[in-house]
Parts: sequence; structure tokens; C-alpha cells
Amino acid sequence: MFFHSKQLAFQSKPDKPDPIFAKMLQEPLGGQWGEISVMMTYLFQGWSCRGPAKYKDMIMDIGAEEIGHVEMLATMIARLLETSPIDDQEDMAKNSIVGAVMGGARVEDAIVAGMNPQHYIVSGLGARPVDSSGNLWNAGFMTASGNLLADFRFNVTAESQGRLQVARLYNMTNDSGVREMLSFLIARDTMHQNQWLAAIAELEADGLETTPVPSNFPQEREHSPASYQFLNHSEGTESREGGWAEGPSPDGRGEFSYVENPGGSSDTGDLSQVDPRVYGTPAMPVPAAAKK
Amino acid sequence: MFFHSKQLAFQSKPDKPDPIFAKMLQEPLGGQWGEISVMMTYLFQGWSCRGPAKYKDMIMDIGAEEIGHVEMLATMIARLLETSPIDDQEDMAKNSIVGAVMGGARVEDAIVAGMNPQHYIVSGLGARPVDSSGNLWNAGFMTASGNLLADFRFNVTAESQGRLQVARLYNMTNDSGVREMLSFLIARDTMHQNQWLAAIAELEADGLETTPVPSNFPQEREHSPASYQFLNHSEGTESREGGWAEGPSPDGRGEFSYVENPGGSSDTGDLSQVDPRVYGTPAMPVPAAAKK
Amino acid sequence: MFFHSKQLAFQSKPDKPDPIFAKMLQEPLGGQWGEISVMMTYLFQGWSCRGPAKYKDMIMDIGAEEIGHVEMLATMIARLLETSPIDDQEDMAKNSIVGAVMGGARVEDAIVAGMNPQHYIVSGLGARPVDSSGNLWNAGFMTASGNLLADFRFNVTAESQGRLQVARLYNMTNDSGVREMLSFLIARDTMHQNQWLAAIAELEADGLETTPVPSNFPQEREHSPASYQFLNHSEGTESREGGWAEGPSPDGRGEFSYVENPGGSSDTGDLSQVDPRVYGTPAMPVPAAAKK
Amino acid sequence: MFFHSKQLAFQSKPDKPDPIFAKMLQEPLGGQWGEISVMMTYLFQGWSCRGPAKYKDMIMDIGAEEIGHVEMLATMIARLLETSPIDDQEDMAKNSIVGAVMGGARVEDAIVAGMNPQHYIVSGLGARPVDSSGNLWNAGFMTASGNLLADFRFNVTAESQGRLQVARLYNMTNDSGVREMLSFLIARDTMHQNQWLAAIAELEADGLETTPVPSNFPQEREHSPASYQFLNHSEGTESREGGWAEGPSPDGRGEFSYVENPGGSSDTGDLSQVDPRVYGTPAMPVPAAAKK
Amino acid sequence: MFFHSKQLAFQSKPDKPDPIFAKMLQEPLGGQWGEISVMMTYLFQGWSCRGPAKYKDMIMDIGAEEIGHVEMLATMIARLLETSPIDDQEDMAKNSIVGAVMGGARVEDAIVAGMNPQHYIVSGLGARPVDSSGNLWNAGFMTASGNLLADFRFNVTAESQGRLQVARLYNMTNDSGVREMLSFLIARDTMHQNQWLAAIAELEADGLETTPVPSNFPQEREHSPASYQFLNHSEGTESREGGWAEGPSPDGRGEFSYVENPGGSSDTGDLSQVDPRVYGTPAMPVPAAAKK
Amino acid sequence: MFFHSKQLAFQSKPDKPDPIFAKMLQEPLGGQWGEISVMMTYLFQGWSCRGPAKYKDMIMDIGAEEIGHVEMLATMIARLLETSPIDDQEDMAKNSIVGAVMGGARVEDAIVAGMNPQHYIVSGLGARPVDSSGNLWNAGFMTASGNLLADFRFNVTAESQGRLQVARLYNMTNDSGVREMLSFLIARDTMHQNQWLAAIAELEADGLETTPVPSNFPQEREHSPASYQFLNHSEGTESREGGWAEGPSPDGRGEFSYVENPGGSSDTGDLSQVDPRVYGTPAMPVPAAAKK
Repeated sequence: MFFHSKQLAFQSKPDKPDPIFAKMLQEPLGGQWGEISVMMTYLFQGWSCRGPAKYKDMIMDIGAEEIGHVEMLATMIARLLETSPIDDQEDMAKNSIVGAVMGGARVEDAIVAGMNPQHYIVSGLGARPVDSSGNLWNAGFMTASGNLLADFRFNVTAESQGRLQVARLYNMTNDSGVREMLSFLIARDTMHQNQWLAAIAELEADGLETTPVPSNFPQEREHSPASYQFLNHSEGTESREGGWAEGPSPDGRGEFSYVENPGGSSDTGDLSQVDPRVYGTPAMPVPAAAKK
Repeated sequence: MFFHSKQLAFQSKPDKPDPIFAKMLQEPLGGQWGEISVMMTYLFQGWSCRGPAKYKDMIMDIGAEEIGHVEMLATMIARLLETSPIDDQEDMAKNSIVGAVMGGARVEDAIVAGMNPQHYIVSGLGARPVDSSGNLWNAGFMTASGNLLADFRFNVTAESQGRLQVARLYNMTNDSGVREMLSFLIARDTMHQNQWLAAIAELEADGLETTPVPSNFPQEREHSPASYQFLNHSEGTESREGGWAEGPSPDGRGEFSYVENPGGSSDTGDLSQVDPRVYGTPAMPVPAAAKK
Repeated sequence: MFFHSKQLAFQSKPDKPDPIFAKMLQEPLGGQWGEISVMMTYLFQGWSCRGPAKYKDMIMDIGAEEIGHVEMLATMIARLLETSPIDDQEDMAKNSIVGAVMGGARVEDAIVAGMNPQHYIVSGLGARPVDSSGNLWNAGFMTASGNLLADFRFNVTAESQGRLQVARLYNMTNDSGVREMLSFLIARDTMHQNQWLAAIAELEADGLETTPVPSNFPQEREHSPASYQFLNHSEGTESREGGWAEGPSPDGRGEFSYVENPGGSSDTGDLSQVDPRVYGTPAMPVPAAAKK
Repeated sequence: MFFHSKQLAFQSKPDKPDPIFAKMLQEPLGGQWGEISVMMTYLFQGWSCRGPAKYKDMIMDIGAEEIGHVEMLATMIARLLETSPIDDQEDMAKNSIVGAVMGGARVEDAIVAGMNPQHYIVSGLGARPVDSSGNLWNAGFMTASGNLLADFRFNVTAESQGRLQVARLYNMTNDSGVREMLSFLIARDTMHQNQWLAAIAELEADGLETTPVPSNFPQEREHSPASYQFLNHSEGTESREGGWAEGPSPDGRGEFSYVENPGGSSDTGDLSQVDPRVYGTPAMPVPAAAKK
Repeated sequence: MFFHSKQLAFQSKPDKPDPIFAKMLQEPLGGQWGEISVMMTYLFQGWSCRGPAKYKDMIMDIGAEEIGHVEMLATMIARLLETSPIDDQEDMAKNSIVGAVMGGARVEDAIVAGMNPQHYIVSGLGARPVDSSGNLWNAGFMTASGNLLADFRFNVTAESQGRLQVARLYNMTNDSGVREMLSFLIARDTMHQNQWLAAIAELEADGLETTPVPSNFPQEREHSPASYQFLNHSEGTESREGGWAEGPSPDGRGEFSYVENPGGSSDTGDLSQVDPRVYGTPAMPVPAAAKK
Repeated sequence: MFFHSKQLAFQSKPDKPDPIFAKMLQEPLGGQWGEISVMMTYLFQGWSCRGPAKYKDMIMDIGAEEIGHVEMLATMIARLLETSPIDDQEDMAKNSIVGAVMGGARVEDAIVAGMNPQHYIVSGLGARPVDSSGNLWNAGFMTASGNLLADFRFNVTAESQGRLQVARLYNMTNDSGVREMLSFLIARDTMHQNQWLAAIAELEADGLETTPVPSNFPQEREHSPASYQFLNHSEGTESREGGWAEGPSPDGRGEFSYVENPGGSSDTGDLSQVDPRVYGTPAMPVPAAAKK
């Protein structure tokens, strides 16, 4: 069960409305690497966790924290779409965003053009479950596999992509209130990158999982000649110069080698003929007798 | 530019057709963590790469390799949907999959029921760009950010989730031809997990990027009190027992602390009133004068 | 069967082209609550209707009407993208939308920036089956369940969300031709909200369905203690002040009560261990013997 | 902010595993009208609420409750995919779901065929954010408009469609543990249908909103002749027999009338010619001079 | 405007219910190449048509016809999900589809496993706007470009893919009522393939459009050396043996040539360095001074 | 297998950055009719091809070529997002795109408003797998059916829609570098329209397939009265004036006729009553006895 506290995780008060930035701030809310994605990822990972209690509790903690981040961003976006406090109906019409398009002339075309139109038309000046291009959030943005190492690697990624995007957004605004909230999100992403890296180390220390994931698949069943070969698939061999082309592999079980001209199998992928009633094009015309 | 060799990366010959397994094998072809996802991920990462040549060449090599993996799986799926070579039209009708549903009675209902129906109706016994549930592949399954550490972390994840899924599939079939091909894929995923881990180490050794990503965002702009705190968001403190709750952080820049009862801000997220012509529900009835 | 009349349901002539408003007008055409959604909703509800003839005929009537609304909006959008009648090729190049981006300089950047680029590139100055953000219409926007009360409640919602959006659009334009057409749509939505409310009353009067939907599920099979309790899930009890927290329930079968501190069950959701060959992370390391 | 309690909202223990029913139970978890949809709907409605505090608090309460319903269903699905507690590795292989497909023969083809294959391959015997057909949840399934009456009507619909689906599922299983949990969900849906109906009554009593939504759009701007007309669009007039065809309208502002043969406007939707450089097909061939 | 006739385009009465075939029949209703796709394609092409009246009227005729095809298939699917007329409640429970899963034992697991579960749970034994895998219809399945030749080519394709799928379905059932309806659809697809081929001939005869589309783009602006070259991109030259590799081109304006070893440009796609505040990985470490 | 050459298919150097045009150029990269669509279409058609070797090789050649087109466009887009070479950090901040939004004032609002925000925030000034509205590419944009005539018709369409879109884009820019690359793409689309038309002729000459597709479905099983009738579905008979309404049909097997007032069947689509436990609305109230 989950309970709601009225306190926001961090204050979300912009200096002033900025509907174009509101559109951009949808990315960390509803984008591929936004807060809805991590919230749903962590909750589903936690609900399916069959590992030790400390992991499950930790995952649920951060899952609950992320719901609060969605809340914080949704609040900020709603405020970026607002006008200042109302003194007078007349004034409000002039100053408000809607006013800008209602006054006989489109005086602020650039603003209108740059907004997410659904912030007006659909949500009535509230946040939307979309990214900065307006794409609807979908569950293909999240991951939960039951294998904690595979999933914690996803989680490090999500916190890295997320911090990267928020850092870019930080440079696109001068609003001190917005920047303050972004600096909080950036700090939490610093924590969460570290947290998942620490959790990965712990999983390995606890003997639960290691590279290659899944570690309890019996490695003798692999086609072992291919397990540590770098296969060059282009002209030029710049790719030979990296640590992935020679020396011991990070899992400590192999030695990298570089194959400059990899060959394939002798199988050329030719397919057999099938029942003509599938109506695919065959290698030779179908005799009339078969057409019935 | 890209050129095609007729050799398959690995032989793709099943012992016998198995349309239900053909459906399941769509997951590593067209699923969230399938070969189309890594192919597109690596190609886009390579095409946008502004880093050193060895990285770009390496990314393009593996991108080209993955196109060949899609080809190998597509061939296997087409063959799992085929009947044996044709001697006789009469026989084919009996033995083929379509025959099973055409002979007056549905003799093999379980097979028909368990297939992906689009393998008949849409692709005519060929592979489809879908996952094992039939969901169409979409570009929300791939990632390319311009930041190589953020992206290489995604790549380690993709190779981990991918190897996990293929290992599960390995246990769902007894077909020796299929298992042989899967053992090749598992070996390549072993290589690729190691490759991306090595590339991450190289990026750090080259001084290009480190934790937290992005590493050249000035950390003094973070809201630093929050950068290394674990915030408990549930009853119980099992989450305190992990390496993420105390001790030095993996980035070497902080010390984890555990906050058992985290508080939020004093901001309760209340929103201001907006122009009544947005027609949202206000805190008080709108005076008649404003309704025009 | 359906037949087409060349008369538009209502005239769709703007005073002048306005490509930015054309983008916005896609919302009531192809958005979640646009005319395609209600057209498809009503048609599918009608085609699956097993209720009395008066309902089926009524649903089909409004379904057919809505196809005409899609037509009317598609025509308006095509006209908002047009230039004035052509006298002269030279002039047309200057005045037209394409001209604006072809004349050596981008003289009207705001307009170009604010348009839906697919109105140029994809549909060649025609309407698109998308919303105002450019999201493609999909069938997750419609509903048909076979239960008329559940569906008529959806229909009231659709006409409410639709009228709300069109009213907002009304305030974003000064074009008298556009406003006239919008005032027709608003009027029809007034009718349709009333129509579905009347239909709900009729369903109840006819003894076919009532609250709670579905009304012929035997209510003694409910976990009855939970049927009329309001469960507070947050600090503070403002939610106690509403009509949903005490007094008789609208279905006439219960009495609301307010539970300030709801408890859950004693089940904490712990999961059992599963076959190690699923490769999920277990509570304890898998003994070597099981790894095969 | 949100906090997690380890108690499930209701116990979620099936009598025995049933992987086919696990697939079906995805519908109320991740389908169009499932718990993720209502959870996200209520949270976004609450975060954007500019109405009185009692509404906002009430919406947040039920939003938090619904997160717990997602949790409860996710737990039940994970358990429906499990085998009984493990005594012996040998036995587990025989009894488990994975064992069924690994033992040399596919002894339970119908079960394998009827499962959601991603419950094996992707989530490793955990719940997925999908519906019973495997479609990924997306944000087009939720709604938040800023207008509480429009949104509460959606909420009544969601609780009606949801209760309908769960009632259907109740009849598809004999598992007493599953039925007990479903009877709890059905009871909560009874409450929630009543709750939103009561909230609609309260909104009207508070003078905040009424039919037609949005009620503060000045009705004199409607094209009033069309506001209360039922327009017959088919042969036959069975649709005349309902309460929507004559008598006072539910909003108390009009009188229904029935138009048997509605005419349209004189506008036939003809479009003007546009710049030939758009390359649409014109009414007459383009003179050579324009081709440049 | 559109009007509804109660007559179905063709009778839609199966000999008996068949819920598995009902799932398969969703493909021509709601799949990529199903009737919803052609209905929406033709309607949007018609509404945006700026060509001669005979084309627009013809497109609208077939658009209206296709709405009737959707209706016919929706009716057939609803009937394939039904039991026979009811004599007795007791019996109905035994014979009906729902009965099969309610009677204490799952006596017909294969049928239950092979159905689309949403035909039970969501639509209550009615058709759904989905394909045979359960994917929701979306507007990416339709096309309207404003250029009639480009669009008529799409239309020929749609009628070809459609007839192919229906022919496959014809071979998957023995139900004479279903086959009769399918033979009607196949006949209409024969007509429509011919119709669009005739329309293409007419467009060319009318001087409105020809190959290459769009024909009024001045061909001297093409990079002409590439306009008629076949570029071999693989080992082997089997592709030289076709009519696309030598001889006059179908547009009558060129001569095909075969390039066995095509070279590319001297541009190797290297990218420049960008502002470090974008946080992409650069070719060299960013000096400390830039990190602010 | 596939191998990468570092040469781009054609040079991709714009005269200068243009972020708004970069957004528009996403359409031919990642739109419904963009290069990803044709690349995936041709690769899947090739991998499933059971026809003669010359066809399979030809399809694979063009499939490989199209991967190179995606690469070329991705490079161009990345360059359109770049600033000029860097002399000086200070300057770069002023001149760069990011600089425009960082300098205290938003000096170039129109540019910022008109860009795809994900070009900043998500891809860090690289191309994205999306169309010009930001919709993610999905596999519903491609086609492979196993029947080469059905598929080659799709391919002609794709090259026609593609050339049309690129021709429109050509008129929206004055950048000579961009125009040069577009003129190469237009030339290749000229070739490819011709190529697929030639391939269609070859298929027919080889006796493998003809109109109507699929040609080996026995035409005596069609409902033949409907095979060559044009059915008028609207008022007015302008549609009678085309070559589709009389004369011989293009397949040489029929004679078109025009049916001015087509009738339907006597079936009115009425549905039977079903088990009340499906909870659909019946024609008459359900007796109490059935409610259990």
C-alpha cells in the first residue's frame, strides 16, 4: 500500500511562467528516460523481486521516491503554464497565455508556436504524460526481468540518461526557481547512479550474480570460440586500438582476440518451398493442378 | 555504405519445424531487447559519434554485426514455419501447417492456437518485426544520446537482458539445431557484455567521462545535501543493510548516509487560479461577469 | 451499409488561411477525444449491440453523424492550409505558405516553426489522422464493451471532453468562419451530452442496467465490508468533507463511511523461489549442482 | 511525496498456479481500463487540480489507493506463475512451468500455447505492464483535463468498465483465492462508482460545474438550433422511441426534437487549387511554365 | 454527410461459432491491411482531393463502401463468438464459451488458450478494433498525400495485401457461411485491384501525373547520373539477370545500367565538435575551464 | 552478414546549420515513408524470399543500399544541428544553438520554438529515429508478405511517397549542400520507382504472379457477380465518368459495370442473446434466477 504526504519532495516554484520551457520539461517527466519510466521500472522490479529482503526494500524505497519526483515535475509544469496572481479579470486576459491568442492579434506568435498545444487544449494548463515532442508515455520505456543484475544495469543507465537530460535542460533556462529544482534532481541522479553501482557490487559480493548475466547459465553450453572474439565488420581497423580487442576480459574468464576478417557459416539462408495455398511467390510457377 | 555477404553469421537450421517456438523466437528478433533494438541502437550511436575514431569504428563494427544477427534469426524463424522438402502435393497438404487447418477437422488445435496467427496470415510463413506477444517493434526500444558512457551503460544492459532471454529460450526447446544457434548468440552476448564493460573502463582511462554522467556538469551546481543520501520511503529499514546506505560512494566523491525519515519541502504544490476561459474547475464559482 | 451525401454537415469556410490554427484543430479531429474517436466508438458499440432496437438504431444514427463531423473538420483544416484563389503564378509563390519558405529568406519563421510540418511534407496541405501534437490516432482512444451503461458513461465523457476542447479552441481564434463552425460543434456536443444522459435514464427505466455496473453481478459475492468505505490514504482529512464520505450512496444500496487509517492485509507480498533455470535472482546463491 | 507500507491492500494468494489465468489477469492490471490507467488518471488529475481542497485531497487518496491495487494484482500474477515451495530440485523441474517445456516432450502444449510467452522470456515469471493481449500500457488510456466534471465522468466510466471486466474474470476461474481477491476489487469498484457519482452531485451543488460541460462557456455563442435536435441518420425511426428524441433535456435548458431527414449545409467541401510545388494532383494539368 | 442503411453489404452468418477463427478474422478488420485501414485511407484521400470531380466522387464511393465492409466483418466476428439460440439457461451455461471455463474444469483448454482473451473480457463477445495478434489499429496504417498517383499505388497495394490475407483465411476454415462471405470480399478485392489500376491509367491519360511521381518536379534538378543505375551492394551478381539491370526504363526516359562495384562519396561522415555544455563525448577531454 | 564501408553514399554537407530544417529532414529518415521504412521492408522481404535467386539478390542489394541512405541522412541532420568549427569557447557559446538559449535572453525564440526539442535534450545534436512531428518509427510502417507482386506494389508506393516528400523538402530550403543531397535522393527514387515497375513486369513475364493478387487463388471460388462491378455509394454519378466504370478490366478477365443503386443483403446484422454472465446489455431484463 502507498500513502500520500502533502509535502513536495522539493519546492517547485518558477520565477515566472514560461510555456516553452514547460514543453521541454515534459521530457524528464514523461519521456523515455523520465521519472514515470523509473517509477514504473522500480515498482515492477520490486513487486517481482524474489531476492533478499534488503534489495526488495531498497527498490521499493526508490520506487516510492520517484512517484514524488513525478509529482514535483507535474507541479512545476503546471506553474510554468500559469499567469501571475489575479488582481483583475481584465488584466488577466491581457497577461495570460490564453489572452495572448485572444486579443485580436497574435502578438506572441513565437510563444504560441513553441508551446505544446495540448497544454492548452487537452490538459487546461496542467502537465501531460508525454515527452517534449508530445509522444505518449508507454510501457516499452520500462524494464523488469526478475534478474537483478540485468535490471540494476538498466537502472544505472536510466539514472545516467536522466541526469544527462536534466543537465542539458539546466543550461536552457535562467529561471532561478527552475534551476534550483533541477539542481535537486541532478543531485538525486548522482546519488542514484552511485546507489545502483553499489548495489551491483553488493550483488556480486553476495554471490548472487556476476558477468556474464545470467551467471548461472552453464558456460560450457556456449559456442565458446565466439565468446571473446572482437569481429571487425568494416574497412579499417581503428577498432583494434581499444581495450575490447586484446587482453583479459572484464569477467576474468577469457582473453579478447581481434578477428580482422570474420567469415560466416556456409549456410546462405535459402528457404524451402511451402504449400502453394500460402500464396507466397515460389521459385517456379505453380502447376495448374495445385491451384484449387 | 553497407554491403551484403550471402553467408549467414551462423547456421540457422532447425531439426524440424516448430511454429510455437517460432513465435517465441520473435522475442530476441523484434522485442524490446531483441536484435533489431541493438542494431538500431549501435547504428544511431555510431552515426552521431563525435568521440575518438576507435570508438566510432568499434560501434559501427558491432552495429553491422547485429544486422547479421537479425538476418540469422529471421532465417531460423522462416524455417521453423516450414514443412520438410516436398515430394508430393498430396502429402504436403497433410503435413504442412496450413494442411493442419484445412483438412476438414482442426487436428492440431493446440498448435494452431499457440502460433502467432500473423505468421500465416500476414507474412506467409516468414519472420515478422514483432516480439513474442506480437507487439510491433518501435524506436522507443533504442537509445543514442551523444554521451558515450550513458550509452555504453545502455549497451551493457541490452546485452544482459538479451543473453538472459536467449538463455531462457534455450531451456524451452530440445531441437539441437535451434540450441546450436542459441549457443552462438549466448556466446556473442558474453563477448558483448565484456566488450562494453571494457569500453566503459577505456572511456574513464581516456579521461573522457566518469561517474556521475555527465561528468563535466559542474558538481557545485548540484543541490549537494541530496547527492549521497539514501532516503527511506517505507516502513522497515531492511534497505539500510546494503552497501548503498553507508560507506564511500563508487564515484569516490562522497559518503553514503541513510535518512530514515526523510522530510519534503514546505511547498504543498498548491496551484494558482487561471483565466476562466480555460474552463478548468476553479476554487470558487466564476462570477457571471467573467462568462463571455 | 453507408451512403455519402455531398453536403457537409455544416459549412467549413475560414475567413483566411491560418496554418498554426490548422495544427490546433487536429485535436478535435484526431485526438484522444476527437471526432474519429467518437465515430469509431459509436460504430463499434452499434455493431455489437444486443440490446433493444431503439438503442441500436440511436447509436448507429450518431455514429453516422460523427463520420460527417470528421469530414467537416478535415475540410476546414485543408482550407486553413490554403492560399487565396490564384491569379498569377508569381503572386502565388509570394503569398502561399510554401512561398514563405522558398523565397530566399525565411520571412515568416514563426509561422513555419509553429505549423505541423507534416501538413506540408506528408499530406500536401490536407488534414492528417493525428492530434495537435502530431500523435497518430489509435484504437486505444475508443471503447465498446457490450454493456450499454458502461459505454454510455464513456459517451457522456467523450462529449464532455470534446466540448471542453472545442470551447478552448473557440477562444484561440478570431476567424469568424472558424468560430461559426466551432459553435455548431459545441451545440452538437450540448445535444450529445444531453442525449447520453437521457439514454442512461432510459436504460435504468427499462430495467436493463443500473449502478453499480454490471448490475446483474450478484452483489452478495462482493467483499461487502469494502463496498461503501472511503479509505483515506494521505495525511489530512479534507477528503472527509465531501458527499462521498458519509450519507447514503447514490445507488441507494449503501451508506458511505470514512476510514481515516485504513489497514491492509497481513499478506506482505513475498514471493516463492522458482526454478533456477528461469535465471531470476534468488534469495540465496544457487548451489553449483543446479547450474546445468 | 509517497510512502510504502509492506501490507498488501488485500491478500493475493491463489490456491494454485494457473499461467493462463495469469495472462487474463493482466487486463485489469495493464489494460485500457486497468489499475495502471486509474492510478495515473487520478494522480495527474490531483496534481493539476485548481479546485477546492476537499476535491484535491479526495482525488489524491484514491490515486494512492490505486497504486496499491496495481501492487496487489502484480503480486497475484507472480504467484499464479509460480510452483509450490521447493523440496527437491528434481521435483521442481518436473512440476514447474518451465519444467513442462524442458522435459524432452511438450507434455502440456495447451498450457504453453495459452500463456503469455513474455511471462517466461521477458519478466521471468513476474507481472508485466501489459493487457491480456500483450499490448503495452500507454498514456492514451488516461485522462486529466483540468475540468473536474469532465474528468469525474471519465472516472465513473473507468470504474464501470473496470468492474465489468473483473466480474467477467470472476466467472472464468474456480480458484477460491483468486475469487476472493476479485471480490475485493469488485467491492472497491462499487464504492468508486458511487464515490464519483457523489462527487458529481457535489460539484453541481457547489455551483462549480453543470451540464453541458464546460458550463461557463456562454451558451448564446452556440449555434442554438442544433443544441437539442436528434438527427436521424439512417433508414427507419426506431431511434425516435427513446427519451432522447422528445421531452425536456436533462440539463433543464432545452426540449428535444426529432429531425427525421436532416439536411446539411450548401457547402460541398470543394477545395481550392494550391501552389503546384506542393505536387498534389490538381484539377487540370499544370502548364509547363510552372514546373521549375 | 453519411447515412446508414440497415442492410449488410453481404450476409455474415457462420454455420457455427468458432472463437479461434474469430481471432484470426480480426486481421482483415483491424490489421495493417484490413478494412479500417482502407476505409480511413479512402475517406482522407477524398476529403483532401483537389483533382477532378470524377476522382473525388469515385474515392468517396469506395470509402463509403468500405465502412460497410467493416460492419460486415464486425457482425461476423460477433456471431462467431456466440452460442446457438437459447432454450434453457442451464444448457446455455454448458454450451457457451463462457460456460467452458466456468464449469469446474477447463474442458476445452485449447479453445480458451487460442482465443483472443479480450473478446471475453473487454468487448463481451463483440469485434475489437485490433488485428489477429491483438495490436490496436493506428493511423500509421493509412495514407493520403494529396498526390493521386502516389496514393492510388498505395491503394492497389492495400487491395493486393488484403486479398492475399483473405485468401489465406479462406483456406483455414471449412465453415460454409464464413467462406461465402470471404468469397464476396475476395471478389470485391479483385474489383478494387482492377479499379485502382484503371484509375492509374486514367490519371496518366488525363495528363495529370506519370512516372516518376511527382511528375512535375523538374527532372533536370535530379542528380542525373544516379537516376537509372542499379547499384549492386552484395557479393554475386544474380541481380544483373533482371529487367531492372539493363534496357529501357518503364518511364521511357532512361536506360538501366548495372554498377557492379558502386563507390560512395569521399565524405566519411565525420562530425565536428560541439558546445561542451551539450555533454556529448568529445574527441578529446574537455579542459577544466570549459566546465562551468 | 553485412559489412560497413566508411564512405557515405553521397556527401552530406550543408552550407550552414539549420535546426528547423533538421527537424523537417527527420521525415525522410524516420517517417512512415522514410528510409528506415524501406530499409526494413526490403531486408525482411529478402530474408523471407522463396522466389528465384535474381529477385532475392536484387531485394538484398537495395536493402543494403537503403541502410546507407539512413546513414547519409543521419549525418546530414547531425551537421544541420552543429555550429561552425570552434576557435574560441567564448564565441562558441554565442554562436551555438545552445548558446542561443543560454545567454540571459532567448534571442532567437522562433528557432528554439521551431526545433525538435529532443534534438537538444535527448540525442545531444544527433539524428533521432522519428518523423518530422517526433513520432517514433514503428514496424507498422513496413511490409513483407511472402507474395512478391503484393510487396513490389508496396515498394513502388514507398518510392513514390518518398520522392514526393523529398521533392517538397527541396522547395523548403535554399541550402545548396542540402539541395545537392536531396537531388541525389530524388534521383535514386526515380531509379527505384522504375526498378520496381520493371520487377513487376518481370514477375508477370516469368509466370509467377499476375492481377488479381494472389493469382493462384482459384477465381471460380470468388462471388463472381461482384468481381467487376463499380458500386456507387453516393448521390451523384460523377464516378461513372472514369475508366473504372465501363470497358474491359486491366486484368483482361472481366468487363466493368456501374451499379448506380447498389442494394445489400437481407441480413440486417441482428445478433443473438448470449450468456447473461457476460454482462452485456440484453434485449430484455435478465430474470432474477439467472443472476448468480
